[in-house]
Amino acid sequence: MGSKIEGIFTPHVVPLDGAGRIDEGELRRYLGWLIDRGVHGLYPNGSTGEFTRFTAEERRLIVRVACEVGAGRVPVLAGAAEANARETIKACETYAGYGARAVAIVSPFYYRLSPDSVYAYFKEIALNSPIDVTLYNIPMFASPIDVPTIRRLLEFPRIVGIKDSSGDLAFVMRVIAVARATRSDFSVLSGWEAVLVPALIVGADGGTNASSGVVPELTRKVYDLTRAGRLDEAMRLQYKLLELFDTMLFSADFPEGFKAAVALRGFDLGPGRQPRTEGQRVDTAALQRVLQCILSEHGYVDAPSEGCPVRTGVPERDRVAQIAQSVLEELRKRGAL
Amino acid sequence: MGSKIEGIFTPHVVPLDGAGRIDEGELRRYLGWLIDRGVHGLYPNGSTGEFTRFTAEERRLIVRVACEVGAGRVPVLAGAAEANARETIKACETYAGYGARAVAIVSPFYYRLSPDSVYAYFKEIALNSPIDVTLYNIPMFASPIDVPTIRRLLEFPRIVGIKDSSGDLAFVMRVIAVARATRSDFSVLSGWEAVLVPALIVGADGGTNASSGVVPELTRKVYDLTRAGRLDEAMRLQYKLLELFDTMLFSADFPEGFKAAVALRGFDLGPGRQPRTEGQRVDTAALQRVLQCILSEHGYVDAPSEGCPVRTGVPERDRVAQIAQSVLEELRKRGAL
Amino acid sequence: MGSKIEGIFTPHVVPLDGAGRIDEGELRRYLGWLIDRGVHGLYPNGSTGEFTRFTAEERRLIVRVACEVGAGRVPVLAGAAEANARETIKACETYAGYGARAVAIVSPFYYRLSPDSVYAYFKEIALNSPIDVTLYNIPMFASPIDVPTIRRLLEFPRIVGIKDSSGDLAFVMRVIAVARATRSDFSVLSGWEAVLVPALIVGADGGTNASSGVVPELTRKVYDLTRAGRLDEAMRLQYKLLELFDTMLFSADFPEGFKAAVALRGFDLGPGRQPRTEGQRVDTAALQRVLQCILSEHGYVDAPSEGCPVRTGVPERDRVAQIAQSVLEELRKRGAL
Amino acid sequence: MGSKIEGIFTPHVVPLDGAGRIDEGELRRYLGWLIDRGVHGLYPNGSTGEFTRFTAEERRLIVRVACEVGAGRVPVLAGAAEANARETIKACETYAGYGARAVAIVSPFYYRLSPDSVYAYFKEIALNSPIDVTLYNIPMFASPIDVPTIRRLLEFPRIVGIKDSSGDLAFVMRVIAVARATRSDFSVLSGWEAVLVPALIVGADGGTNASSGVVPELTRKVYDLTRAGRLDEAMRLQYKLLELFDTMLFSADFPEGFKAAVALRGFDLGPGRQPRTEGQRVDTAALQRVLQCILSEHGYVDAPSEGCPVRTGVPERDRVAQIAQSVLEELRKRGAL
Repeated sequence: MGSKIEGIFTPHVVPLDGAGRIDEGELRRYLGWLIDRGVHGLYPNGSTGEFTRFTAEERRLIVRVACEVGAGRVPVLAGAAEANARETIKACETYAGYGARAVAIVSPFYYRLSPDSVYAYFKEIALNSPIDVTLYNIPMFASPIDVPTIRRLLEFPRIVGIKDSSGDLAFVMRVIAVARATRSDFSVLSGWEAVLVPALIVGADGGTNASSGVVPELTRKVYDLTRAGRLDEAMRLQYKLLELFDTMLFSADFPEGFKAAVALRGFDLGPGRQPRTEGQRVDTAALQRVLQCILSEHGYVDAPSEGCPVRTGVPERDRVAQIAQSVLEELRKRGAL
Repeated sequence: MGSKIEGIFTPHVVPLDGAGRIDEGELRRYLGWLIDRGVHGLYPNGSTGEFTRFTAEERRLIVRVACEVGAGRVPVLAGAAEANARETIKACETYAGYGARAVAIVSPFYYRLSPDSVYAYFKEIALNSPIDVTLYNIPMFASPIDVPTIRRLLEFPRIVGIKDSSGDLAFVMRVIAVARATRSDFSVLSGWEAVLVPALIVGADGGTNASSGVVPELTRKVYDLTRAGRLDEAMRLQYKLLELFDTMLFSADFPEGFKAAVALRGFDLGPGRQPRTEGQRVDTAALQRVLQCILSEHGYVDAPSEGCPVRTGVPERDRVAQIAQSVLEELRKRGAL
Repeated sequence: MGSKIEGIFTPHVVPLDGAGRIDEGELRRYLGWLIDRGVHGLYPNGSTGEFTRFTAEERRLIVRVACEVGAGRVPVLAGAAEANARETIKACETYAGYGARAVAIVSPFYYRLSPDSVYAYFKEIALNSPIDVTLYNIPMFASPIDVPTIRRLLEFPRIVGIKDSSGDLAFVMRVIAVARATRSDFSVLSGWEAVLVPALIVGADGGTNASSGVVPELTRKVYDLTRAGRLDEAMRLQYKLLELFDTMLFSADFPEGFKAAVALRGFDLGPGRQPRTEGQRVDTAALQRVLQCILSEHGYVDAPSEGCPVRTGVPERDRVAQIAQSVLEELRKRGAL
Repeated sequence: MGSKIEGIFTPHVVPLDGAGRIDEGELRRYLGWLIDRGVHGLYPNGSTGEFTRFTAEERRLIVRVACEVGAGRVPVLAGAAEANARETIKACETYAGYGARAVAIVSPFYYRLSPDSVYAYFKEIALNSPIDVTLYNIPMFASPIDVPTIRRLLEFPRIVGIKDSSGDLAFVMRVIAVARATRSDFSVLSGWEAVLVPALIVGADGGTNASSGVVPELTRKVYDLTRAGRLDEAMRLQYKLLELFDTMLFSADFPEGFKAAVALRGFDLGPGRQPRTEGQRVDTAALQRVLQCILSEHGYVDAPSEGCPVRTGVPERDRVAQIAQSVLEELRKRGAL
């Protein structure tokens, strides 16, 4: 087996072309750009990557591209969840063949399963996967993987880590306490960048953060500063990251806010798989102006030509003011005002 | 377009063979049996049918078989949800070709979408489906479809009904109030047989009830008695149905309890797609003895040879007593005691 | 012990004078008016009566007044929950002395207690109360009382009923199934008038409905028609009641919408105990015009002088349209537009 | 106004005598013991102090005693929530007279209020209280105080801080971001000791932690080490604190686990206000042996005479093993086995 999984893995979005198909060229360009900016690994088919909105064939294509772009540069953690354990194991085999470092498998979703069923599902995979497996806990979308279940699963050497997107730092700590006792190779990754610095401080090994697909430079810097023990600087940037994260998370259905920001970094993501109303399109355009203001502060993009409202440092207040202003502007642009 | 959708539609389970593949022969036998016992329609690829655990190809096979068995006898309401709107529309086209009466489309799941996104999704489908569409609201598993969204969707003639599995009778009434005002052809089906009689009394047009796959005779009788205004008799059977429903619903992860009961009616469902622990297998065997006692009361099956505990008429108490007794017996059988 | 508790019990609001004290005169006038219009009983210190916002002394005054007004006319079901079991038992003693028929005791709130703790609490009261006790289940506000706990509590003859405000009709049915087996004297009352007719049909003995404090005539009529087996007429009025209930429930923090409606029936409720913003006051004034339109349809009040918008029969659509119009009007009145 | 509120404030329990009355002597002894062991302040009438289970008069007595014991030694943060804003303001006046440093006021509970109502409630108090006010956010028990509401309330100088018991570290950060912009005197205290070190690192000013009533020495040391920048040592103790906290939190209805631990430190808490079943008493006795093992590791108490099971360092596993063993032992003791 490989070395412990550590660092920032980017759960990346997937660009589509005008016809709604995967835009392989733009995807390669985007993944290369992320690696150039310092992310430690790629994470195709995560929630940010809208894995449920692609077909089984498309999910394979996405992982293949990520493995090809990452080859020799960064490891790939491939989202491998399929319709059932057997199909998931087949995907594990395929992704092993592509050269992925490990797979990440979300707990069964749609049905809310009991801990016993969650255990049985991962056990089946652990016993049959030819590639290392990380658990993916995201209780807002899928059956929760609780601490006793994680403890039971620690006996399978094939299971080498967990990605937690619960947002609950105490849960991360409980997992670390349980894993440390027997499995020094077990990796705990936080998927909630709002508390990335605290997660690293309590012992997490890295992050799988959607924001790292938008500001890989910033996320990497937060990671490096924390690892270097420069906490004050890390926390200053952590608060910047929080403002950006909240804006992307709360302003649209996930992961639309993150996609709106990736587009600002110069990537053409196309129409998206989830239909949108005209009102949502207006909202997104407005949101993008807000995001442009935030990103321009870091020097990642130019400020919008119409300027940015004064920032009070109160994220929530600024956000409302900016969005209100931007909706008006967007409506004006479209002749609705 | 066809006539209004009414009556009991069975969201049926799917038998597997020893290798875990769909057992087409047993599926045909089961669906024919259901029709013989009076269900008004078939509903393949519902939640009871574990549609998320099959591949896209398998889901097509299941609907094709249902349409072939139902042809000339009963209409088919085909679950058609796929990875995204485009794939779902393709399934609608296929199922129209198979002769389905309509499709049932669950609200997008995994991600919890805003009402606007839910609306946009169904609008896209309504504008492109060649076959009538019913909405499927099941907020415990998928993004909720709220009353204002339903109202907005009523403007699309292609959307001809809703199946609600929220269990909230007031919600059913709100939908009926909204739909009645403009769409006499709109069908409201309750997926919560715990309150089937009350749902029919407040104006629902029928039910899509997992229990009807276990006791089609009983479910149909409850429906007929209510329609005939014989409320006292209907309510007496409704309480019997509630006891059975609760036992199947609360004793195992959905839909395992229902599958355990279908097996008692003489169908070989095979191993199932969701792995199970040894403990869960013991529990299921114990549950089956309890279910056998309940079903034998109706004369649908013989009582277990070891006999049934005295029934107090207090469902919850009986259930606990019976399950405790049955677990002990099952453990004894397996030599663990 | 008294006879079985049946019929419509009104959980009434409490008028305050300009200084924020209980307006005893107006309270008496209101309770007399309710009895004149046919409610079967009074229910002081319910959730609608904002029992938590009064002091222990005030709660005693409220029950005393209710018992005095009800004496010889209708029974009183007195909300008796105090800070702890001992204080609650003291209130039971006091209310027995006032002549209440029974007390209603909400499950412990603030802390979310386990079923065992809920059981221990009610057991303590059941063993020490000199007056019949009804359980009050309202899981959105207080620790839930689940079916197994109810079953355990049935062994105490002092506990003679339950009021359920869960809104879950299947829960009401489960309670009835459990209670029927051993306690024919046990009363099941529904606190969710959205489904009053269905609750009566499945076997409930009556309702404790906030709406009966607004439209006692209508609630009583729904009850009488259902009891008389005139289901079609009952259901027609049930849908009217649902529209009114939803408008009062969803347009303001509970129970403000109900209080706004009681005021329209001619009672001066005063300033209220919970402070409100200027915006909330505008909303309430707007809501009252909507309610006035609904109530005027039944002939209970005159229509507003500025007229009512055309009703489409689609409650939700009407409500939004009306409220929007009314907010504008109210703002205009106050010179803000 | 006083200086900024900082450090560890103990939300303490209240000893009762055999008759169930407040045991003032034991309360004084306990509070003095806490101060001797280094807590920075006292916090009577918190959730740990079961404020809802005492009468208004008793709550006053509790604060008076705390102020008397704390006088000249540590500040007192007095829980002042009463039945309504007016009664709460009266309590503020009383507690100002007792010499409390500030009051802590929980958001309105029982009813779940909208942000506007929460705002109006605290505004009313802020404008009328003669003593500094801290907000108390505990969304699992009371109406949530969201970030926009906090921002609106920052304009009142009387409101000088917030205690957050949501357990959500990102929420704490959002509050800090909002408050920092305009109010350097505003204190943010974390009520979730599972993440005390992380909370201090992101900028919180202290903690109001139930555990500090059990292990004041340990909690204070965690605080001091973090403030001194000795993070590795702080985190080692934080994990110990987490194990203890989880054991007390998850093994019984809150705050019974904390009370069981305080008793081990040598205080006689009496019978408690919430009735308990015999089974719960057995569970508590078993829990105490587990807690004794944990506390003895720190040298705070002697190990139980029957010894402690080997600790694996896996908290959850140990806990289950220990509790199972202890329940057996307790049953044996009582002759039930």
